Amino acid sequence: MNYRIVVRHFGLLLIVLSGSMLLTELTGLLLQHGQVEISIPAQRAMVMAITAGMALGGLLWWRFSESKHTFFGRREALLLVAISWLGGAVVAAIPFWLWAMMSPAAPPDHPFHSFVDCYFEAMSGLTTTGASVLTDIEAIPKSLLLWRAVTHWLGGLGIVVLFVAVLPTLGVGGKKMFQVEATGPSSPGVRPKIRETARLLWMIYVGLTIAEAVILRLAGLSWFDAICHTFATLATGGFSTLNASVGQMRSPTVDWIIIVFMLLAGVNFGLYYHLLRRRWRTLVNDPELRLYLAIIGTSTVIITLTILPKAIIITTGEMIAPSIGEAIRFALFQVVSVQTTTGFATADYEQWGPIPKLVLFILMFVGASAGSTGGGIKVIRFYIAFKVMIAEVERVFRPNVVRSVRVGHGIVDPELRLATMVYLLGIMGLFALGTAILVVCEPELDFVTLATASAATLHNIGPGFGLVGPTDNFGFFSAPSKLVMSVLMALGRLEVYAILVLFMSRFWHGE
Amino acid sequence: MNYRIVVRHFGLLLIVLSGSMLLTELTGLLLQHGQVEISIPAQRAMVMAITAGMALGGLLWWRFSESKHTFFGRREALLLVAISWLGGAVVAAIPFWLWAMMSPAAPPDHPFHSFVDCYFEAMSGLTTTGASVLTDIEAIPKSLLLWRAVTHWLGGLGIVVLFVAVLPTLGVGGKKMFQVEATGPSSPGVRPKIRETARLLWMIYVGLTIAEAVILRLAGLSWFDAICHTFATLATGGFSTLNASVGQMRSPTVDWIIIVFMLLAGVNFGLYYHLLRRRWRTLVNDPELRLYLAIIGTSTVIITLTILPKAIIITTGEMIAPSIGEAIRFALFQVVSVQTTTGFATADYEQWGPIPKLVLFILMFVGASAGSTGGGIKVIRFYIAFKVMIAEVERVFRPNVVRSVRVGHGIVDPELRLATMVYLLGIMGLFALGTAILVVCEPELDFVTLATASAATLHNIGPGFGLVGPTDNFGFFSAPSKLVMSVLMALGRLEVYAILVLFMSRFWHGE
Repeated sequence: MNYRIVVRHFGLLLIVLSGSMLLTELTGLLLQHGQVEISIPAQRAMVMAITAGMALGGLLWWRFSESKHTFFGRREALLLVAISWLGGAVVAAIPFWLWAMMSPAAPPDHPFHSFVDCYFEAMSGLTTTGASVLTDIEAIPKSLLLWRAVTHWLGGLGIVVLFVAVLPTLGVGGKKMFQVEATGPSSPGVRPKIRETARLLWMIYVGLTIAEAVILRLAGLSWFDAICHTFATLATGGFSTLNASVGQMRSPTVDWIIIVFMLLAGVNFGLYYHLLRRRWRTLVNDPELRLYLAIIGTSTVIITLTILPKAIIITTGEMIAPSIGEAIRFALFQVVSVQTTTGFATADYEQWGPIPKLVLFILMFVGASAGSTGGGIKVIRFYIAFKVMIAEVERVFRPNVVRSVRVGHGIVDPELRLATMVYLLGIMGLFALGTAILVVCEPELDFVTLATASAATLHNIGPGFGLVGPTDNFGFFSAPSKLVMSVLMALGRLEVYAILVLFMSRFWHGE
Repeated sequence: MNYRIVVRHFGLLLIVLSGSMLLTELTGLLLQHGQVEISIPAQRAMVMAITAGMALGGLLWWRFSESKHTFFGRREALLLVAISWLGGAVVAAIPFWLWAMMSPAAPPDHPFHSFVDCYFEAMSGLTTTGASVLTDIEAIPKSLLLWRAVTHWLGGLGIVVLFVAVLPTLGVGGKKMFQVEATGPSSPGVRPKIRETARLLWMIYVGLTIAEAVILRLAGLSWFDAICHTFATLATGGFSTLNASVGQMRSPTVDWIIIVFMLLAGVNFGLYYHLLRRRWRTLVNDPELRLYLAIIGTSTVIITLTILPKAIIITTGEMIAPSIGEAIRFALFQVVSVQTTTGFATADYEQWGPIPKLVLFILMFVGASAGSTGGGIKVIRFYIAFKVMIAEVERVFRPNVVRSVRVGHGIVDPELRLATMVYLLGIMGLFALGTAILVVCEPELDFVTLATASAATLHNIGPGFGLVGPTDNFGFFSAPSKLVMSVLMALGRLEVYAILVLFMSRFWHGE
């Protein structure tokens, strides 16, 4: 293992992260111009964090630059991926912590006094999870909320820029990274060359960001709210600037805009490549896209029919008797938010009875499409797993018929078959293990809270059920639980392997 | 599909089943001699059921005997396995139902007035699950309780006699059956020839039965209780003749005897072959046996330490402050009972707090050894899955090192690797599907009850948590739920495939 080169590139990452913080700070100052209060402690916290990040990053980059071992192999790449997230969150957490230390606006029991809470919040941002320790989000200075949203955007972009575009130009094998980071199996026909895809994905991501921010601004949001919600939507993150999430705005227009952009963020970005080249047929025939939309459609119909006769409690606590249109909108919003693993909420789905809750619970595991910014297990994996299982059942009564497993026009080779089944089983095992550890850490909490907290962090969703429902937060957990959930978030976001290898002695000591 | 030959052999099965019922009735009369009351309605119900079963079985056997299509293929074998359990339970349920119809001792709200409840009870018996609809077991006539225990014993023997010994002599390929019925992967070195194994397993099963019954009789039980509990132990069933299960006897000696025989019933019966031939080394090195004992040992230690400082509530409702020895005994009994999927209880483990409950919940899924009478996923499958996962994680950073997956001295070939992962994922999927259907059928019940009811029936355990805990029963479920759980029991007992193929059109219409 060539540690020097890993540390050197981690230094570079810190510089990028601090640079983003600097841009955030400047944007924040710009947006706050004309508003009443500018939080001096928040400015100070940001500037100190920027300075610290730049200094440390620069030091690592410069100090380890003279290494003569420039071999950047697969192990080094994996280790860099892992420490980028695990270590990046430390730096990203600093502004929150410094602000709480310095600001009289932060009461002594404010969660940000604990660095573990700040780390949880930063990890939740960078992994685009959206689980928060905050009860009163609106009491946090706007520049910090903007930074919180930026961690989402950076996390969502992480796959594209860091792991496919920036690092390969530094000599890191892009393909190796891509395999680990950007979601194992991809839809057939969606495999343009890595570098080209990377540039394209970056352009699409920026393009969608500008589009959504402008549209939200036109719908009446301030630039601040528009930008923060855009970042959280396109990264499928879920951090809102409002205590009652998107539901607080009570705007059907905003709901619909966010539904559309969540949907777009949950699609394999490779498909936009075909869209730009007007390859309609490829688009229409993509099995993952069809299944993704079918699952969302079916779930929305089931939930709409169930909630229509009842009153809907929106996230602010108000109750409304929904029209058909409203029932569809509330059902669709929650379905899309959970399946794309965004985690925004407009209604308290906890009150919807067993069937909608069951549907949403299943969607938590299904997740978005491969090659999107969304988390979860991914639609295509379920599709492959289902096909493999059918083939195995058939093999019981027709052992001599060799039938290939097809997805769209592609054939799933035996290696990918096994890898998919292993991934599914592994992630279910990690979900169970996460739940078990949380049960041991929090013996007084109910099982549904702990199981869905495990699922909601592992699949990078944000809210779950029970005490971590759409109107709750994760602040009440003990510090050990928060660290466990931080690891779960990293495991889910990095699709397990980049973190799991760290626990194997052969990874560290092999040739 | 050659339906005639399937129907003919199903007729034979009915004759065997009715014959067993006749033997049960005669034994019951023998045991009841000298006791106060003999239930006339129960005798009538048994005789009518025997007559009906014999007549129908004889009719089918005779009517379809002249078939010239004598080809008994894989499909026919699978269909026969499926209808043997699904249809056999119908006949096995008849005595319960007729008794309730005819007896003044059965109040109008007695569950046996519903044939669905009787079917559930019979299926629970034949699949060696042990989940009961009865609240007051002791109010049932003894001959019916004996029949209930016999269904366990027949179910446990099912693998050996019906599917490996009897049917092959009728020209059915024993190996095909064995693959479906007797637990896919078996430990290395435990693969003597099918016919020989069958005869051996049958002898071991009968030998263990006689041994346990005699030992329990010597420990002070009546012959009736000794025989019923023996049948329920060795089949890893769990039906007791007492309302508060084994705990009602308050006898440490009986507890220990049953612990030992549950342990023996959960071992791969193929290992007894090596035991009889004094191949100690094979026995000691068997990876599944070692892991099976290690899991039981570890779980017992964890639970003992957790329950030691507290009072233990035994199944009769009494509370005791345990000594170390008692804590070990109660912990071990519950652990062995759940892991071997027997389902007997001596203590109300629902009161044991989150950590013991978590351990028991995990054991529900692990299950006994392959080739035992126990249910669950089986220890060896977890072992293989774990090894395959380790190999897959290693492949991420060492893609060019091909490492074989070993279990003991054997190598797990790629086909078995995929099959194991598919089985594990499939059974988890069925568990989730079962839970989902129960949620829809019983919207007012809590999630823990429904999820553990699904697991407890699918893995053929018996009791779960919540409203289906060790001191509860399944009587309160609606009829649709009971039918769903009956299918889950059959799915679990037949290791999924024999039932799943019935849902594939290619199974019915293929060449």
